[in-house]
Amino acid sequence: MTDKINPIQPTDDDARALIRWLLAEARFGALAVRHPETGAPYVSRSATVALDGAPHLLISTLSLHTKALMADPQCSMLLGEPGNKGDPLTHPRMTVMGCAELADKAALKEAWLAAIPKAKLYYDFTDFQMWRITPETIHLNGGFGKAFELTPDDLKG
Amino acid sequence: MTDKINPIQPTDDDARALIRWLLAEARFGALAVRHPETGAPYVSRSATVALDGAPHLLISTLSLHTKALMADPQCSMLLGEPGNKGDPLTHPRMTVMGCAELADKAALKEAWLAAIPKAKLYYDFTDFQMWRITPETIHLNGGFGKAFELTPDDLKG
Repeated sequence: MTDKINPIQPTDDDARALIRWLLAEARFGALAVRHPETGAPYVSRSATVALDGAPHLLISTLSLHTKALMADPQCSMLLGEPGNKGDPLTHPRMTVMGCAELADKAALKEAWLAAIPKAKLYYDFTDFQMWRITPETIHLNGGFGKAFELTPDDLKG
Repeated sequence: MTDKINPIQPTDDDARALIRWLLAEARFGALAVRHPETGAPYVSRSATVALDGAPHLLISTLSLHTKALMADPQCSMLLGEPGNKGDPLTHPRMTVMGCAELADKAALKEAWLAAIPKAKLYYDFTDFQMWRITPETIHLNGGFGKAFELTPDDLKG
């Protein structure tokens, strides 16, 4: 193998179905932001629920990732968790790249709690905010040699 | 709760033991880098093994994260995977911030394969490189209200 190989496969319906499934199933993921002080890439875990076709985050203003998004909304999120069985690197996952913006926390309460019932313990805490990541580009990795680059339209069911 | 609360706890031996355990146990994690074209925060999954007290990565030059590290080695890695049971947000995890550099792949082969035997299938592929992330700062999140900021010395056993 050399650098001349393009590992990106043509988008097909299986790839589209897989990213929709990964988005719908995700309850947490790894959020990458710019560190608000250093600008360095910073990754942390966040709860997530797909609402209105986009990943949403319920995050506290006390946390570094929220401060980072307030300073710079450009981010990405890794969705698709392998669980305990099998080879984690063959488990499908995707990177959703986009910009985050504040969403209407009150309006989304019922939908969020339907997906994550335990969140009722802290949902109304005033330091928790609801953010929406509007996808711009999606990288799907379905395992070795199964890389795809998809668009927001591909994510729509 | 208000923005005036400092959620960082004083470092103690339990926190030190936890980050050493998270590092030793990790076989994969979420790597955040700067996208080599856009500069945006980009997160992807990577295999990882702790060698010589630091996370190492076996990654292909065909992949975007490797190209990103070649262009800019500043990165961070999220370690501590929740598995299938319990609340993923109460599972301990840490963000290791630092700089990546190429490591001696041949010299580390035996140690890597002892941790991830399946990697023998592709370890010697010429597009795979071994990278070391030298930790600079470690953020530990042991669950709600259990945030710590630790140093490379805390990571040494």
